[in-house]
Amino acid sequence: MTDYFSSDFKLGILGGGQLGKMMLYETRKFDIQTLVLDPSPEAPSRISCDHFFQGDLMDYDTVLEFGRKADVLTFEIETVNVKALEKLEQEGKKVYPSSQTLKKIQDKGVQKQFYTENAIPTAAFKKFDSKKKLLESIQKGEIQMPFVWKSTTGGYDGKGVTVIKSEGALNELDESPCIAEDLIPFKNELAVIVARNPSGDLKTYPVVEMEFHPEANQVEYVICPARIDPSVAEKARKVAEKVSKAFEHVGLLAVEMFQTEDDQILVNEVAPRPHNSGHYSIEAGFTNQFEQQIRAILDLPLGNTDSKVGGVMVNLVGEEGYTGNVIYENIREIMKLKGVTPHIYGKKITRPFRKMGHVTIVNEDLAEARILAEIVKNTIRVTGSEKIN
Amino acid sequence: MTDYFSSDFKLGILGGGQLGKMMLYETRKFDIQTLVLDPSPEAPSRISCDHFFQGDLMDYDTVLEFGRKADVLTFEIETVNVKALEKLEQEGKKVYPSSQTLKKIQDKGVQKQFYTENAIPTAAFKKFDSKKKLLESIQKGEIQMPFVWKSTTGGYDGKGVTVIKSEGALNELDESPCIAEDLIPFKNELAVIVARNPSGDLKTYPVVEMEFHPEANQVEYVICPARIDPSVAEKARKVAEKVSKAFEHVGLLAVEMFQTEDDQILVNEVAPRPHNSGHYSIEAGFTNQFEQQIRAILDLPLGNTDSKVGGVMVNLVGEEGYTGNVIYENIREIMKLKGVTPHIYGKKITRPFRKMGHVTIVNEDLAEARILAEIVKNTIRVTGSEKIN
Repeated sequence: MTDYFSSDFKLGILGGGQLGKMMLYETRKFDIQTLVLDPSPEAPSRISCDHFFQGDLMDYDTVLEFGRKADVLTFEIETVNVKALEKLEQEGKKVYPSSQTLKKIQDKGVQKQFYTENAIPTAAFKKFDSKKKLLESIQKGEIQMPFVWKSTTGGYDGKGVTVIKSEGALNELDESPCIAEDLIPFKNELAVIVARNPSGDLKTYPVVEMEFHPEANQVEYVICPARIDPSVAEKARKVAEKVSKAFEHVGLLAVEMFQTEDDQILVNEVAPRPHNSGHYSIEAGFTNQFEQQIRAILDLPLGNTDSKVGGVMVNLVGEEGYTGNVIYENIREIMKLKGVTPHIYGKKITRPFRKMGHVTIVNEDLAEARILAEIVKNTIRVTGSEKIN
Repeated sequence: MTDYFSSDFKLGILGGGQLGKMMLYETRKFDIQTLVLDPSPEAPSRISCDHFFQGDLMDYDTVLEFGRKADVLTFEIETVNVKALEKLEQEGKKVYPSSQTLKKIQDKGVQKQFYTENAIPTAAFKKFDSKKKLLESIQKGEIQMPFVWKSTTGGYDGKGVTVIKSEGALNELDESPCIAEDLIPFKNELAVIVARNPSGDLKTYPVVEMEFHPEANQVEYVICPARIDPSVAEKARKVAEKVSKAFEHVGLLAVEMFQTEDDQILVNEVAPRPHNSGHYSIEAGFTNQFEQQIRAILDLPLGNTDSKVGGVMVNLVGEEGYTGNVIYENIREIMKLKGVTPHIYGKKITRPFRKMGHVTIVNEDLAEARILAEIVKNTIRVTGSEKIN
């Protein structure tokens, strides 16, 4: 068995954003050497890794050369060059999650088809190579509005996904390959993070609930545990487990799901890495998701996924109308509240809706955490040094 | 009010050991820029700070020059040049804890006198300028054996402290100024960490218990909360609070105390910084001691000092008979246990009794955590690549 702790072993991480940064707290805690590749010289992960490399994550040679320096390779973002990962695996490098898993997830059409083939419940869909084909299908009456349009690649943080309610809305769609998915009326959006190591040990985190703003279609709070019936939670965990096993996934897999009006669980999509829906675990969980990711990809024993206390997470996104140097207004005010911890990602420049940080509120009483979360949400403001329209 | 988060503000930290390293997880979380000064190029804090400077912490010019680069200055070790801190304060620099507090703590004779002057309960003692004066006093029959000999300066991790039971033991003592303290029979050794910010807000952490090995005179476990009567715990917190206020301390103050056989609380000594007895708070506390230190010295609101769960901490020290590159034997075994988190400090070379890391065990049931802690203690071994006698 490899010795990781205070040894010459090197973990390579593709991507140096906030997820990588938070993972580095854990590699530092275990004194595991890290290499990070990111295109930005101001990547949040730059400080805290052992060696930082600036480069394009989609460039074959850059990823190959970087990967060869590491003993085990992982990623904190899906948009990386998969061909280079395949080549590295052929050369005997351990890449977790594997290039095969990533390929299936990167393309939403392939991902959906994978669910169908593996009898994993998901909303009905049709796949199209181009916008033209989609329009033809609509004209033939094969697709009813409203439906959910998804670009098969490049979607992130709500980009590349649109609910199509009328013919007019079709004009604004990209030309890219896409899927058209049934619009499912749902009670709740849920997520479960599954950890699995190369030995096949598997653990699921508690089900979390994404609470949406009643008007804006935006996740406002991630709540752990989800305020749902235990039998539904159990079903969601089982589905998530099935997804992880089907992918033979190694590392963390965040499975986003819908709880339908008749309490069915449908898989929406997955992320093969630590996820926004697991940030609460830093303060609330026995083993936070970033430590768990390190344990999983290094084939160490998986940690306890239970929570110590209830947790609610609020994203800090740049306010509309501001850019320039970020300003965290009223952060002192929220720090007075019980069980409130701000996490500032270290991006110097704010932009409307840019993820700049998050705040976790923990409490023995989840209802109280939820009340405090609303105060946090209404108090802190992420503005900037420049006003824009 | 200064903006610390993602701003140009710079926090300077004197010392780059494990305490500084763990403090840096928190400055990174808040995106606060840091400068670190340490004599070792392999200091555990080197990675994760924004700017690392190599230099002697006891050298006036080095500390002065370093301190001028920072907006607020703190330290994670007491053996720093106080004259340079005084000069920096005269120049208007904020130094927390202050040079005045540090001066009173660095010299154990001054520290003990301070307790007496401030009516803080402590064991009776006599102060001597030299070993010669001590021996004269013994000859005059002013001091009875057994007593506790303490060097007034330079004591650390049990060094510079000896229980003198016979005349023969006197020969081995240093020539340095010293104190001779009554040997107090005690039930428990306790500690309370007090956080106080420049605005005077003050919070105490729960009382922890240092459990000693029945034969070797070594702390084996730090247990939070201490398994003592609540009225004694309340008394200990009050005494610790009084000590912090008397020092007009800013930042964390770890107050080590004896619970005597008749349940009196006597202050043993203090450390003006995060402390080994507070490591449990990383996993068990609502606000870990390192985040609290940052909040305190930057005059931010202090966080909740309560615990989420019970916690037991085990120090990982280098085993006798080994040096060279450190090896953490059986670390996988302990990682299988519930609620177990190893912290590896990142020192490459082990030496007998060198502090190489610690392990925290958290559990809703403190008794179960204590049982697991014993398994951890008996399983993990810190050895090295070279055998020595």
